[in-house]
Amino acid sequence: MSAERPSEDRLVASFARLASAGRRRPRGVVAGVGDDCAVVRGDGEDLLLTTDALVEHRHFEREWFSGHALGWRAAAVNLSDIAAMGGRPRYALVSLFVPDGEDLAYVTRIEKGIADHLARHGAAIVGGNVSGTEGPLAVDVVLVGACARKAAWMRAARAGDAILVIGELGNAAAGLALLREGRSAPPRLVRAYLRPAPRLDVSELLEGERAVRAAIDVSDGLSTDLIRMCRAGRVGCDVEAAKLPLSRALEAFCIARGEDPVAWALRGGDDYALVLGVAPAAAPAVRARVERRLGVSAVVVGRFTASAGTYRLLGEDGGHTPIQPTGWDHLR
Amino acid sequence: MSAERPSEDRLVASFARLASAGRRRPRGVVAGVGDDCAVVRGDGEDLLLTTDALVEHRHFEREWFSGHALGWRAAAVNLSDIAAMGGRPRYALVSLFVPDGEDLAYVTRIEKGIADHLARHGAAIVGGNVSGTEGPLAVDVVLVGACARKAAWMRAARAGDAILVIGELGNAAAGLALLREGRSAPPRLVRAYLRPAPRLDVSELLEGERAVRAAIDVSDGLSTDLIRMCRAGRVGCDVEAAKLPLSRALEAFCIARGEDPVAWALRGGDDYALVLGVAPAAAPAVRARVERRLGVSAVVVGRFTASAGTYRLLGEDGGHTPIQPTGWDHLR
Repeated sequence: MSAERPSEDRLVASFARLASAGRRRPRGVVAGVGDDCAVVRGDGEDLLLTTDALVEHRHFEREWFSGHALGWRAAAVNLSDIAAMGGRPRYALVSLFVPDGEDLAYVTRIEKGIADHLARHGAAIVGGNVSGTEGPLAVDVVLVGACARKAAWMRAARAGDAILVIGELGNAAAGLALLREGRSAPPRLVRAYLRPAPRLDVSELLEGERAVRAAIDVSDGLSTDLIRMCRAGRVGCDVEAAKLPLSRALEAFCIARGEDPVAWALRGGDDYALVLGVAPAAAPAVRARVERRLGVSAVVVGRFTASAGTYRLLGEDGGHTPIQPTGWDHLR
Repeated sequence: MSAERPSEDRLVASFARLASAGRRRPRGVVAGVGDDCAVVRGDGEDLLLTTDALVEHRHFEREWFSGHALGWRAAAVNLSDIAAMGGRPRYALVSLFVPDGEDLAYVTRIEKGIADHLARHGAAIVGGNVSGTEGPLAVDVVLVGACARKAAWMRAARAGDAILVIGELGNAAAGLALLREGRSAPPRLVRAYLRPAPRLDVSELLEGERAVRAAIDVSDGLSTDLIRMCRAGRVGCDVEAAKLPLSRALEAFCIARGEDPVAWALRGGDDYALVLGVAPAAAPAVRARVERRLGVSAVVVGRFTASAGTYRLLGEDGGHTPIQPTGWDHLR
């Protein structure tokens, strides 16, 4: 369940109230509104349900994307939600909102991009809907995944657990800034935005690993998403600024602008890194296993604390500053 | 899987090609693109997946609908797809596309309308997404249902089976015409459009009834949807014009305009009547059971034939005319 701006948060809150409002729930709803996916109990395994949409001029500009690349990204943002629950993707439904006079070849390539990305992870489009619209092009993907019964990684963090960040932070936000400015840009940063890699390799590798006790994917910035984990678990967090995983490309980008890469790492969304809450004794082994087996950056950046509502960024000088949820900062 | 206009049919056809294009299917896909719902095999029962969207100025004008009524209808069109597969609805995801400056109270009432209609049938919203848009308001509902293993009612009709229509035809199209013209209108016709009743009572009553061998819900007009059943089953159909279930309100509407109610019954969509293909020996008993138990019109209007591609409307004079798929005729 996600929203982009304060006014839309109201609508999500309204969904959450409706979903929990004493009305008879259908059997099998384990978790509804308020995590990366809804979780419903199947006969054997649990099902994961998620949906995310890309709207032209709001989430993308088509001069940045071929049709295939846009479809690839539309699949990625949903695949990442399944990864963040520790699940495996299975089935997708795709709703297309197609403007009058649209280039249908472009839209067909979107479909192909979605199908190709799903196929890479063993999933497929099984249905969908095509609507005309007077508005912008929009692509809405619903993804159904599965995980072992009661094994879904929920958002709620536990005090004392290590905060393990898998993947780099801030690259995609820098890439997006460069795209907006129309600059010739370091390919790594731009690619991080255009073609994010959902970390299904992580959910597959760590399936059944009981030390993983919470997870989220970083779609809206580490600060926002970390605070979501804390709020869900009624805990706080301490993050060491010096440990945040920053790429050299991001550091060069920030030096050229006189900006602070830590701010980009905290605020930048769209990287689809994973944040795991890991039992502290097991964290070093889990970290090493991910890095060795998957060749991806995996860093313990701090820990969840018992101080609910206190979110601290620790500096190298021993001081600290509060972490703020910075909200959504994609296109506007 | 549905589309509204020829150009959009191309996109649906493209989905269908992608879904069947030799790529590795995830395990458990029983039926993908091309029926009212996708069917995937669960561990115990089968899951049904469907999605349908309502776009402002394309599928509705908001002066016709309170927010709650619009949400009710958005749920109805998806609930009807589950009814048409003989299933029970369970879980919904709702994607909202909210224009800048939208009246959020209106949108909150849409959410409530969806939740209330789902709750009536034992289903609930478990997740969703809220996106801003520069375009019109749009509501995209995904519904997950279930049915007994291998018991889903598919579209494909069998030659020789009776065509059983449950519910009246043409009322909603007449109601929509009256709304467009801004006339004070017979409540029954307008209500048929604004507040269609998904026939989940029928799928519940006939669960496990093996004489039911095919089904579709009439969203785009009997002629269009009947031809979909015929094409899926590679059969033809003979329909007796005199047997089509017409309301007195529709007849009065047609007399006042000098129009043919049979044409309205064949072409008019949005009624969400069900069409079942029923084993001929069992059809009278099934028909009587539905009418007696549910108090809804249930009429055998003809039969599916072995003449694939031949769709005939039989007149009372013994003559016949071809039935054409008339396509989508909602708002434009």
